[in-house]
Amino acid sequence: MTEENTIYIGKKPTMNYVLAVVTQLNRESTEVVIKARGKSISRAVDVAEIVKRKFVDGLKQTVTTDTEHLTNEEGKEVNVSAIEITLTK
Amino acid sequence: MTEENTIYIGKKPTMNYVLAVVTQLNRESTEVVIKARGKSISRAVDVAEIVKRKFVDGLKQTVTTDTEHLTNEEGKEVNVSAIEITLTK
Repeated sequence: MTEENTIYIGKKPTMNYVLAVVTQLNRESTEVVIKARGKSISRAVDVAEIVKRKFVDGLKQTVTTDTEHLTNEEGKEVNVSAIEITLTK
Repeated sequence: MTEENTIYIGKKPTMNYVLAVVTQLNRESTEVVIKARGKSISRAVDVAEIVKRKFVDGLKQTVTTDTEHLTNEEGKEVNVSAIEITLTK
């Protein structure tokens, strides 16, 4: 599992990430990891659901969640939820 | 598994749902299911993470995602992502 197989979900349109995941799966990869934090978590689930439903049949999915400790702009430590969705051919 | 064990995440403050989950686990329940759709998915992950990290040690978690087909206010069918987080003692 290399970083190459990881798609980080941010604020771009959902379909940008769907395309990135599908492209990755159409290359040599048998596995893609979709990662997101905070409010982008909902978009990460959208991406996984669209890939499975409309683009690549028969994918297996595992989902884990975590809490990450980040330092915000004011130097204060904050906790942010994170999700990791692994799609495997 | 009855509906009683299910907590639906909406737009209330996160801690309201955390309290509901913890209360459920402190009763007879050995299992609580946290469900959310659309933008509330991020809050559902927050709720599960806070419960595990601050309130109840040693919980096992399984996460599944799905796509639900709803009819919106204009009578149009829309697809919405959903998450189901099961916490088990």
